[in-house]
Amino acid sequence: MPEHHLSKKAFKRQRAELNEALLEAQYELRKANKGPVLVLVSGNDNGGKAEAIYSFYEWLDNRFLDTRAFALPQGIEQRMPHLWRYWISLPGPGKLGFYLGSWYHQPQIRYCRGEINAEAFQLQMEEIARFERLLSEEGVALVKLWLQIEQPSGGEGAAQELEQSVVMREWGDLGSVDHEQVMTSTQLMSELTSTPWAPWIAVPSDDAHYRDIRVGQIVLQQIHQLLDKQTKRPAPTPLLPAPLVRLQQVDYCLKLGKQQYKQQLRHYQAELRELVRHPAFAERSLLLVFEGTDAAGKGGAIRRITQCLDPRYMRVHGTRAPTHEQRLQPYLLRFWRRVPTPGRVAIFDRSYYGRVLVERVERFCSRRQWQRAYDEINDFEAQLSAKGTLVLKFWLAITQDEQLRRFKARERSPLKHYKLTEEDWRNRERWPHYEQALNDMLAHTDTVLAPWYIVPAENKRYARVEALKIVCQALRQALK
Amino acid sequence: MPEHHLSKKAFKRQRAELNEALLEAQYELRKANKGPVLVLVSGNDNGGKAEAIYSFYEWLDNRFLDTRAFALPQGIEQRMPHLWRYWISLPGPGKLGFYLGSWYHQPQIRYCRGEINAEAFQLQMEEIARFERLLSEEGVALVKLWLQIEQPSGGEGAAQELEQSVVMREWGDLGSVDHEQVMTSTQLMSELTSTPWAPWIAVPSDDAHYRDIRVGQIVLQQIHQLLDKQTKRPAPTPLLPAPLVRLQQVDYCLKLGKQQYKQQLRHYQAELRELVRHPAFAERSLLLVFEGTDAAGKGGAIRRITQCLDPRYMRVHGTRAPTHEQRLQPYLLRFWRRVPTPGRVAIFDRSYYGRVLVERVERFCSRRQWQRAYDEINDFEAQLSAKGTLVLKFWLAITQDEQLRRFKARERSPLKHYKLTEEDWRNRERWPHYEQALNDMLAHTDTVLAPWYIVPAENKRYARVEALKIVCQALRQALK
Repeated sequence: MPEHHLSKKAFKRQRAELNEALLEAQYELRKANKGPVLVLVSGNDNGGKAEAIYSFYEWLDNRFLDTRAFALPQGIEQRMPHLWRYWISLPGPGKLGFYLGSWYHQPQIRYCRGEINAEAFQLQMEEIARFERLLSEEGVALVKLWLQIEQPSGGEGAAQELEQSVVMREWGDLGSVDHEQVMTSTQLMSELTSTPWAPWIAVPSDDAHYRDIRVGQIVLQQIHQLLDKQTKRPAPTPLLPAPLVRLQQVDYCLKLGKQQYKQQLRHYQAELRELVRHPAFAERSLLLVFEGTDAAGKGGAIRRITQCLDPRYMRVHGTRAPTHEQRLQPYLLRFWRRVPTPGRVAIFDRSYYGRVLVERVERFCSRRQWQRAYDEINDFEAQLSAKGTLVLKFWLAITQDEQLRRFKARERSPLKHYKLTEEDWRNRERWPHYEQALNDMLAHTDTVLAPWYIVPAENKRYARVEALKIVCQALRQALK
Repeated sequence: MPEHHLSKKAFKRQRAELNEALLEAQYELRKANKGPVLVLVSGNDNGGKAEAIYSFYEWLDNRFLDTRAFALPQGIEQRMPHLWRYWISLPGPGKLGFYLGSWYHQPQIRYCRGEINAEAFQLQMEEIARFERLLSEEGVALVKLWLQIEQPSGGEGAAQELEQSVVMREWGDLGSVDHEQVMTSTQLMSELTSTPWAPWIAVPSDDAHYRDIRVGQIVLQQIHQLLDKQTKRPAPTPLLPAPLVRLQQVDYCLKLGKQQYKQQLRHYQAELRELVRHPAFAERSLLLVFEGTDAAGKGGAIRRITQCLDPRYMRVHGTRAPTHEQRLQPYLLRFWRRVPTPGRVAIFDRSYYGRVLVERVERFCSRRQWQRAYDEINDFEAQLSAKGTLVLKFWLAITQDEQLRRFKARERSPLKHYKLTEEDWRNRERWPHYEQALNDMLAHTDTVLAPWYIVPAENKRYARVEALKIVCQALRQALK
């Protein structure tokens, strides 16, 4: 009797038990609004990838199952970051998502065809490992299955089998791939992406009964772990204390006279209008992040920029406190859904930096959450940047006195009184806390690919022209 | 001094007033979570369509503006109902949406190129009028602007001008269009779609100042109307009293023995597996709606169907009570987002029929809302059907006694106890009300294109095979 085999009788008994346990677990998962649980099904085509998924449709409530098969990227998908399409289609909490052709397949195929070298492949595997860590940290459970046909012969057979495992039937004829490459890529993939929170699990699949029971057990265990919060994760990297240098250097006296302002505004607005019409911009995109204390003048600075842009290809996204549904999902998700496609401009009036600012200070998230957010955000921006998005971030800086003056002016103004809320006054009292948070943010997320610009905004005219000028300079440089 | 002209001084004064009023109105709109307000901007290219929109970006909070320019349908859009892409991209409440190239443009272009005849064009205009009526009823305000250059010359000039108005620059060269057709189409469009709740409004646009102020005033007025709920709408068509015939004819004694069941199940499952693999199905799609009282066996019947389908191309959608966000939007929106694309199957376990069943009985919606829903649903299904979706609807019927037996069995079963809630017992007490609602639903929405099948479900085996058989028969017929 082979080792990984089940008799029909044993199968029937085990299946009945498993069915009951899985149904109960699925219900608990939904009730707790935990998850989703993502099950990546890879391995040999003749290992029964589809069949392993069918079992769950037999057992569980089909309304909360969601199977996705991604073909090779097409159209807009090719022009966006590799992980974009997986982000924007992430199943909601309480769901069980099955992936055929997951985020591993494209890099593997490209490597096996010789389109990317080992180094590029390795970088992509590392990117994936970070993506999976983020998902895991944000409460998404991952089960990565490798359905394996046990191989008595070895040699040529083994290589062919691995090749099959990579080349999915539905992707059509992909031309010849190199057997050596297939071996190496699978090896590398396993080494680089088998983490404590998302290990690859091999499932002997010669016997269909054994395979189905085994897969069911693994998924069940993962749901239990998620419900019990047993998942082990590494401690976050300790943060270096950030010196308060940059903010102290802000020169709040910088200002522009009315005439200078008019003239420079006209000049840079004309330039920006031309830059976004440049043929090269059709292949790029622009993401502008505006942050700043309340009443720092974000809206006004943004409007001086949008005046130059065609409303059809531009969106300003305000960032409000997350809704109940959004809170149950990874915090970066709603921003991934808003990133600009080629030829377009997205402007965030407040942004994902909320996690390391307001959410940190007001304790809407845990220490662990905001501490790991720096790396996650850097990674997010780097992925966009790698695909041609120019990411520029602005902090509009005003003094506490100036803020008070503006609050009082708002109270009196019929056009602006509604902008002032109780919350604004409360936030004001936490000024030193915000200053610390801001400082850490600058220290950890000011990168070459996505720099922070601190713009003194005590004088609105100066700040507006300055932001506009920076956008023009960066865009001019990028389109060269 | 021409009639539709503003001096620079008058413009400046009026603009300041309008700016303040619009800003206030935009704030009120957001605070009340009303809308969205959709502004369709049509007319001459040299009438300044884009410029008219720019003004709002100068005046208002850009975070709540949303400009959309739809090109001619491409890819999947061509294979879905004409209005699908407008449905799935509808701005949320509190927003002001500007449309360039709205739902009017494609029919107009096709008519002017001679691709569709006058009758087909008229049908499309009527479909649009119903769409706009639905939006208006559901709290979406519509402003349809026609920017008009006043024409002293007339004749050839007028025709050319109208032609320009249809052919948008960004759609590229569309070949020659017939001037006569352009005149007729614009005339017909105006006649058929100028309704009290969404009239076409001509704006003389020779003078840019006059145009911008006029457009601003019209939008302001529309927001005020929406906030005051002043919108005039026609009384809903009175409902014919529906005889209780069909439900009384249900034969609850129909049943299947275990052997017959096994055999017939195997037979029809094999047939369904083949039918969905038929090459012709790649151009069609299947939408199955399952409704029925609690414990009627919807889940079990659905599973016997999903067992035959490839999980990659199939989704089962459960319909829960709408979330707070969903309640602020047209009720059909979340179902439009889930309709199947070509080659795919969508199964609704409960559906949009909730509006005329549970929402009616439990008074979650007004009488007016559920009364008009019959026509709206018929229209929705007809649009899907016209593009090749096979729509089949099942009512699983059980007696009150059988329901009680199943509730009690659920209480005892470890696999099913969680299915039973307090709500189920409460609903049970309203049985006669549900019966009346069901009866009206059948009387008003059993159409040739999207028929209702009443399946006796007192015997689960019978109901499962019966539903499967009906799907097979209808699909076989459709793929011929």
